[in-house]
Amino acid sequence: MTSHQLPLLNRMSVYLHDIPLSQAQARLREALQESNLWRTLGAEEIRLDENALGRVAAEPIWAEISSPHYHASAMDGFAVRAVDTVGAQPSAPVMLYTGPQAQYVDTGDPLPEWANAVIPIENVESLDENDQITKEIRKPKSIRIRASVAPWAHVRPLGEDIVATQLVLPAGHILKPADLGAIAAAGHQTIRVARKPKVAILPTGTELVPIGSKLKAGDILEYNSLVLAAQIKQMGGEPTRYPITVDDFDLICEQVAEAAKTHDLVLLNAGSSAGAEDFSSRVVEKLGTLLVHGVAVRPGHPVILGTINLGHQTMDNVPIIGVPGYPVSAALTIDIFVEPVIAKWLGRRPLELPTETAILTRKLVSPAGDDDFVRVVVGKVGQKLLAAPLSRGAGVITSLVQADGLALIPSGTQGMEAGEEIQVRLYRSKVEIEKTILAIGSHDLTLDLIAQFLAEHDRRLASANVGSQGGLVALRRGEAHVAGSHLLDPQNGEYNISYIRQYMPDIPVKVVALVGRDQGLIVKKGNPKGIQTLKDLTNPKVQFVNRQRGAGTRVLLDYHLNLMTISSDSIAGYNQEEYTHLGVAAAVASGRADCGLGVAAAAQALDLDFIPLFQERYDLVIPKQFAEDDLLAPLFDLLVDVRFRESVSKLKGYDVSVMGNVILED
Amino acid sequence: MTSHQLPLLNRMSVYLHDIPLSQAQARLREALQESNLWRTLGAEEIRLDENALGRVAAEPIWAEISSPHYHASAMDGFAVRAVDTVGAQPSAPVMLYTGPQAQYVDTGDPLPEWANAVIPIENVESLDENDQITKEIRKPKSIRIRASVAPWAHVRPLGEDIVATQLVLPAGHILKPADLGAIAAAGHQTIRVARKPKVAILPTGTELVPIGSKLKAGDILEYNSLVLAAQIKQMGGEPTRYPITVDDFDLICEQVAEAAKTHDLVLLNAGSSAGAEDFSSRVVEKLGTLLVHGVAVRPGHPVILGTINLGHQTMDNVPIIGVPGYPVSAALTIDIFVEPVIAKWLGRRPLELPTETAILTRKLVSPAGDDDFVRVVVGKVGQKLLAAPLSRGAGVITSLVQADGLALIPSGTQGMEAGEEIQVRLYRSKVEIEKTILAIGSHDLTLDLIAQFLAEHDRRLASANVGSQGGLVALRRGEAHVAGSHLLDPQNGEYNISYIRQYMPDIPVKVVALVGRDQGLIVKKGNPKGIQTLKDLTNPKVQFVNRQRGAGTRVLLDYHLNLMTISSDSIAGYNQEEYTHLGVAAAVASGRADCGLGVAAAAQALDLDFIPLFQERYDLVIPKQFAEDDLLAPLFDLLVDVRFRESVSKLKGYDVSVMGNVILED
Repeated sequence: MTSHQLPLLNRMSVYLHDIPLSQAQARLREALQESNLWRTLGAEEIRLDENALGRVAAEPIWAEISSPHYHASAMDGFAVRAVDTVGAQPSAPVMLYTGPQAQYVDTGDPLPEWANAVIPIENVESLDENDQITKEIRKPKSIRIRASVAPWAHVRPLGEDIVATQLVLPAGHILKPADLGAIAAAGHQTIRVARKPKVAILPTGTELVPIGSKLKAGDILEYNSLVLAAQIKQMGGEPTRYPITVDDFDLICEQVAEAAKTHDLVLLNAGSSAGAEDFSSRVVEKLGTLLVHGVAVRPGHPVILGTINLGHQTMDNVPIIGVPGYPVSAALTIDIFVEPVIAKWLGRRPLELPTETAILTRKLVSPAGDDDFVRVVVGKVGQKLLAAPLSRGAGVITSLVQADGLALIPSGTQGMEAGEEIQVRLYRSKVEIEKTILAIGSHDLTLDLIAQFLAEHDRRLASANVGSQGGLVALRRGEAHVAGSHLLDPQNGEYNISYIRQYMPDIPVKVVALVGRDQGLIVKKGNPKGIQTLKDLTNPKVQFVNRQRGAGTRVLLDYHLNLMTISSDSIAGYNQEEYTHLGVAAAVASGRADCGLGVAAAAQALDLDFIPLFQERYDLVIPKQFAEDDLLAPLFDLLVDVRFRESVSKLKGYDVSVMGNVILED
Repeated sequence: MTSHQLPLLNRMSVYLHDIPLSQAQARLREALQESNLWRTLGAEEIRLDENALGRVAAEPIWAEISSPHYHASAMDGFAVRAVDTVGAQPSAPVMLYTGPQAQYVDTGDPLPEWANAVIPIENVESLDENDQITKEIRKPKSIRIRASVAPWAHVRPLGEDIVATQLVLPAGHILKPADLGAIAAAGHQTIRVARKPKVAILPTGTELVPIGSKLKAGDILEYNSLVLAAQIKQMGGEPTRYPITVDDFDLICEQVAEAAKTHDLVLLNAGSSAGAEDFSSRVVEKLGTLLVHGVAVRPGHPVILGTINLGHQTMDNVPIIGVPGYPVSAALTIDIFVEPVIAKWLGRRPLELPTETAILTRKLVSPAGDDDFVRVVVGKVGQKLLAAPLSRGAGVITSLVQADGLALIPSGTQGMEAGEEIQVRLYRSKVEIEKTILAIGSHDLTLDLIAQFLAEHDRRLASANVGSQGGLVALRRGEAHVAGSHLLDPQNGEYNISYIRQYMPDIPVKVVALVGRDQGLIVKKGNPKGIQTLKDLTNPKVQFVNRQRGAGTRVLLDYHLNLMTISSDSIAGYNQEEYTHLGVAAAVASGRADCGLGVAAAAQALDLDFIPLFQERYDLVIPKQFAEDDLLAPLFDLLVDVRFRESVSKLKGYDVSVMGNVILED
């Protein structure tokens, strides 16, 4: 949202009129009630076919007919009167004449009026042609049986499944495959279902460009409408995506007024800045009533709730929601404010995610006034269900992609400590979560390849990058199954072992080599500053970017700086930290730094130059108790998988000759 | 399936070549492997829009670009060099000149190359016009700040969300709304997804008629294809429903061969009788290879697995499954045999239902040789999760509709005892299950209305009909929340109380009247046998149908028979039992009986005549501990709901004046 058309009065003091979440939801509900819109929107009659799947029954479905609608044979056999079979025993068979006493029936055939039981064909002997089986066995003159049958044995009586007039399904039921069969069996060939609520999605902002555009700085890809439309579709609504509207007040008003005429709900996705939603709120004020301007919820603060008046009469309103521009805020706004409305309009129950109690892996600080929704990765380590918070940035849509659930830090609390129990609403089933391998530690590009290969073998890899030492600490705390580590011991030049003994004493482990890899300096294309060795980092014109404390790459740097007696104080940017190799590469690519130490693959990925300096080994550290667990078996399989080895060897600067070597096994 | 075209040799000794389930699944998998069909079928490129929802990524999705693709301001404010702000404090402000030292940026704007931090606008004072806020505040000549900022504060650095080349999503991932946004943010506007497997569904059988047909005895509504198509659609396949084919061997062969040319899988739904699937197996034998004929699984026995050879070359095969005709068997066959194949073809993980341990409410007998799948209602009563088996008839599709889950009695066991723990794969979320009110006891038509009204108030009613005494016993065992009861005490003419004390001593209860209702004789339209009183039941020409032992209606009958000194032995059909009022009515409607004792509504429902004899009270019995539970609150609300009262009073023979009266409260 650029701001050149905005009135600027009070810009410096602009603030959001945050009201609590529950109040905001109540205001929207009340406004809908006042406009007689807090109800089911209406029904439509559709053919009963597979497209009815997922639709919502608009009315109770009562049975028109019974099923079966006659007494049906449940077996292939002979229909008889039970009374005629009394006394039949192995040693004392009873003979029945076909016609008056026994009649052949296939499964599903109606019983003759005089019959009340069926004898399965395998219990019948033919009496024709010297007891031999004949071609016309179904019409022997007589049969012999050696057991009696009870009345109604092997019969599906009228109404066994459905009795005419009974309730088949209540209104509000979401139709599943078997439901369609039951509705058909009850005599229907059409069904009245709730009309899909029509939702208009209007992206506005001069800075927005359609997905797939060639980008220049300041351009923002407009993909929120895509996510919102998919959310609406998933909820059972019918989304309409409008093209991007530039920041022109009159144009937006026109679009909104137009959309309101043909939709049940308008979503105005108008940038996330205070300026931008100020703009949206003025649109709402001009065309109707502004109900809420800012909600005390994170992410999602600058939500706007209102109604557009269609002008015919006071009550002729259409709700409008000003959706924040940041993608995570936008998606959450739909879940929090739109889902309950769609549910009401469809007459179905609101979606409710299953909740589990998990242990928070790190401290979370939260503003006391806000309901704070935190995306978390959930995994089961040993017997503990853990919730590891993901990036809390409202702009980080990958945090939603990776999230297994949503934890709420309610308003009134200022955060939670690591180790505390927290309630998590799960996006994934527990089955899936129990197949998640939690990897924490040093970042390596091969982790993405591992993730892809594991996905093919019914495992999910959730990885968090906290550096090698952080990974070992996480293992000690029982917060991960595996840690990637490349910690060089300056004393003996060995990797990882002394650190493992130091950080996780008394925990038996298995350590397996993953790769050997080049570490070196990532520099701009063409290496404009002519950087060649660590010595060049002391050049005051060279801006360095470092990895965070505890990262193996940082240990490696410090080790070599020490050997070369270079003081870290002499390096500009030594304290500027990134958490991944790619983060370092991105810093160089963007010009924030001239160089950083990292792996070749990261330089290659962002089309940068790379000056190899050292080779190092990257290991997987796995507590013994998990190394023997079925969960991790596919990970060990990977290490001997030719396809995987090939994929890794294609990455520049990687050496797979050590892959799978057992370094340590307690 | 009629059988007049079938060869009849060996009909009496026909048997199913049952092989264990796991073997059958393995044979199908091996056959697909041999035909090179045990793999993903292929990919197609689609636009990245909301219709991509639910599709399966055919390849790993790697980021083409970073997001943000430039350093973006995370706030509305002024871009600055962090170093210029050092030392700023409340008492010692720092002044910055706009232009060289500070530049206004909106959220999302790119940072100027020289800047590395943003000061939010609310932390900035304008120094123009005597510190007053002006209309052009974004371009004051200078600003004043009273706090320093750290480098990169309020900046979204390049790649914060996504770094070019990183893995966004692995192949095989099922696309959710947020995923679409992340894929777009990573620079894609199309996506390669797995092609939907095409599945042909061929219903065959001369007895089949399309849904909505006017029925005569022996006609079977063909709705299996509807359920199967919906299942295939839900799994991510593309179903084609063929019209019904009559039982003509050549015609079916022709249809199957035709369907195999254009589909990845053929489902031949050909009746459930031994004769019928014999027919299917011959079709498979003629057109290709019969792999499996009969599987030791209940329901589902007569499953046929095979391949159709397209004739071009040996490996050019299309799998075919002969699906049993009974609807429950058919649906289960799709879950067991087709789902894993569709999953493989799409490259996604197979569906896995979450499993919970529940307590079985009644004994189950099972053939030792079979894997026996039992549909169960699951509910939480107090702290116990209970699994109550539903009808096990393969023809009872409503058992699938009502099922909350599926329990497996594995082959090798002959059943399970009541009270044993059983693993249940849940169809519904635990959230829903915990909102289920388990009602057990006497059947009343108002239970359907209660189910409908409760559904509107976020509760589900699962009711089982075991008679009034059975309901009280279930309450004592802690297996239900509420029991419907209308047990007359012959000693004092009171309802229920003495029985409650007898069957559930020491359990405090609340008893609330639901309705007063007429009990009387349900007779054929026009009352052809002229039945008027209970005395007429002793007429040997009158066939009676009774309710089961323990049913309130039976107690009522016995009470009055006793008063009238009529012996039950003198009543033909006294021992013929039905479990519901509608069951009794259906027995009369079908001619199985001439009359039975029941409620007027049941007679009305099936268009029968009714001779009222007595009025009785039907109560709800609720253990005190549940009466005060939030779960049951909507049930109590119902009893004072005008709309509900009106609906009930519309049923013939019902008196709502007592509704809600508290009969007993311990």
